[in-house]
Amino acid sequence: MTNKHGRQFLQIPGPSNVPDRVLRAIDQPTIDHRGPDFQALAFKLLERVKKVFKCSGPVIIYPSSGSGAWEAALVNTLSPGDTVLMVETGEFALLWRNIAVKMGLKVDFIPGDWRQGVDAQVIQEKLAADKNQSIKAVAVVQNETSTGVVSDIAAVRQAIDAENHPALFLVDVISSLGSNDFRHDEWGVDVTIGGSQKGLMLPPGLGFNAISEKAIKASSDATLSRSYWDWNAVIESNRNGFYPYTPATNLLFGLDEALNMLFEEGLENVFSRHARLAEATRCAVGAWGLENLALNSNEFSNSLTAVLLPEGHDADGLRQLILENFDMPLGTGLGKMKGKIFRIGHLGWFNELMLAGTLSGVEMGLALSDIPFNSGGVQAALNYLVEKTE
Amino acid sequence: MTNKHGRQFLQIPGPSNVPDRVLRAIDQPTIDHRGPDFQALAFKLLERVKKVFKCSGPVIIYPSSGSGAWEAALVNTLSPGDTVLMVETGEFALLWRNIAVKMGLKVDFIPGDWRQGVDAQVIQEKLAADKNQSIKAVAVVQNETSTGVVSDIAAVRQAIDAENHPALFLVDVISSLGSNDFRHDEWGVDVTIGGSQKGLMLPPGLGFNAISEKAIKASSDATLSRSYWDWNAVIESNRNGFYPYTPATNLLFGLDEALNMLFEEGLENVFSRHARLAEATRCAVGAWGLENLALNSNEFSNSLTAVLLPEGHDADGLRQLILENFDMPLGTGLGKMKGKIFRIGHLGWFNELMLAGTLSGVEMGLALSDIPFNSGGVQAALNYLVEKTE
Repeated sequence: MTNKHGRQFLQIPGPSNVPDRVLRAIDQPTIDHRGPDFQALAFKLLERVKKVFKCSGPVIIYPSSGSGAWEAALVNTLSPGDTVLMVETGEFALLWRNIAVKMGLKVDFIPGDWRQGVDAQVIQEKLAADKNQSIKAVAVVQNETSTGVVSDIAAVRQAIDAENHPALFLVDVISSLGSNDFRHDEWGVDVTIGGSQKGLMLPPGLGFNAISEKAIKASSDATLSRSYWDWNAVIESNRNGFYPYTPATNLLFGLDEALNMLFEEGLENVFSRHARLAEATRCAVGAWGLENLALNSNEFSNSLTAVLLPEGHDADGLRQLILENFDMPLGTGLGKMKGKIFRIGHLGWFNELMLAGTLSGVEMGLALSDIPFNSGGVQAALNYLVEKTE
Repeated sequence: MTNKHGRQFLQIPGPSNVPDRVLRAIDQPTIDHRGPDFQALAFKLLERVKKVFKCSGPVIIYPSSGSGAWEAALVNTLSPGDTVLMVETGEFALLWRNIAVKMGLKVDFIPGDWRQGVDAQVIQEKLAADKNQSIKAVAVVQNETSTGVVSDIAAVRQAIDAENHPALFLVDVISSLGSNDFRHDEWGVDVTIGGSQKGLMLPPGLGFNAISEKAIKASSDATLSRSYWDWNAVIESNRNGFYPYTPATNLLFGLDEALNMLFEEGLENVFSRHARLAEATRCAVGAWGLENLALNSNEFSNSLTAVLLPEGHDADGLRQLILENFDMPLGTGLGKMKGKIFRIGHLGWFNELMLAGTLSGVEMGLALSDIPFNSGGVQAALNYLVEKTE
């Protein structure tokens, strides 16, 4: 039986469910990207979007995926042969490492077990040992979409400051922006890398770089080749409310409406909603007797939960069963977690009843599989949500 | 806390959730309703829609609510002072009675307790006693939206036939069409009254009369005043693919797409899906220790379930609490059931995970109220659905 009636529950950890309001905003005639209407939109958007990054400097918006925004962060700030310190938090940290290598950078890659976040202490030790300051940038992922583990960005900043090291600080917030607190300015981040398709509640297609004064300064000495990703050209054009090439106009209409929605709810309310729904998810996982891939409670993700299956059970088989019977896509295990975990996305435009449906789909899938588990996960989540409502 | 993030669960017993495909079909430029594109659409639609009513005669489509379609059924077939036999199955039967009275008809209204369907035996007795055949029509509601009780339409037909009575047979299928089996031709119905906003998965705004040869014949003698509702004018225009006045063009675009969806799934699959989700709902209600307003299991509705609260508890207070905390509107108690029941809509574009979210909202609402209940209703529904999936 393929279940294709009623609304699909899109519970991969992004792209997330796009609100109707955002879809309707996108669903307007494309306008001249060199005309006055676009100019007014761009001036407004470029100011408003800063509030999401909690930054005062420019935010570069690319027609791109998140990977493009990663590449942009590197090619604008670094030169061939420069060393970047990165941490293996999961598959996306690995992918970012690969981009750096392809761009001709050296990567000092701190290994990780994919179940814990960045250890700021290790970063500090690496920087302390870097007597000739060959490390030009420290690049970390705030929320590892492949594992559901969050890293403490403020702690990494403190580690850099403790050694008084001049390295730039690059942070990927693709799956945490708009779901988990992030503070570009306060945490001294030089380049923040974002994407449209997660907490920002948009379809994929926009990449972001929020950049500091120090990053802009670094870009004037950085010699990696760049044209499409060149910040300077964008900043120049943005001054007049335009772009150096054709922007993704309709996604910008959507971004404007998504910002309306985030600000109407209030960013701090958005974060606490994500935290509440994430904790309810973990209540369910615990009641099922299954294991959260994330080991440390202070590193649990608000955006997604990766569930580890007992040895010998195929997470992709479970995902397939749930997709076929209940029309709910869940996130697959990436890289070395392939088949071992499935990931529940609980980010973006999401609420209690959507979560209850989501967890019910997982629980029914488990019941239809031969995976050992205890029923009552949904009930545990509902109990928690009731407690949080009173 | 007002919960206004994420998708609203619209679980009143209609208007039901409108599929995105239908919304997108409606969201097209209005066309000339006297032009060739409209003509092609109308020819196609007027044939295709018959399949839903299981009829071979014409289906009149009005820009109207269901009440308009009721009035149309009466004014096209009856004359001032005619007697109509009706049955008090609930609030909607009462409303239909009121329309008949306003139109100058006499109503023989068989009283009911709102918890049981039409008793065909009583109909037969009434017709047997009607020696001079003053009863010109028998009018019943297949699915009482106010109570969640279904009546056996074939049994009423048999009662009429058993007495060889010439009365016309009028049936309201507003909240059963596309959710529960209905057979206009096979069950010898003369006028079937439908609406767009329930199992047909459209917004409100279209009323339907499916009509038999006998009904058309009756209309030529019927002397109740009519202009807007006049079948004849519509049938004449429809022959050329047009309407005698401006039709609700964009809702007709939507109807075309809704029919695509119903036929892709297959009508019998649509009915069994509704039956499965309705039974899961009743599993939850039973596990909560609450009472289904419908008394007889052969009369349980596939479209909605009306839940009776223990004496002294206010169903509207519970509905309000659920709306405020979980953004889910449920159906209010109508007429004499005001405050005593709430109604869960489980019809139209709906699936297992939407139902799980719906029932979770009810269970959390109960937990937040002072209404005595047992938890575990959602779990009971999931268990049933898993069993039905295997």
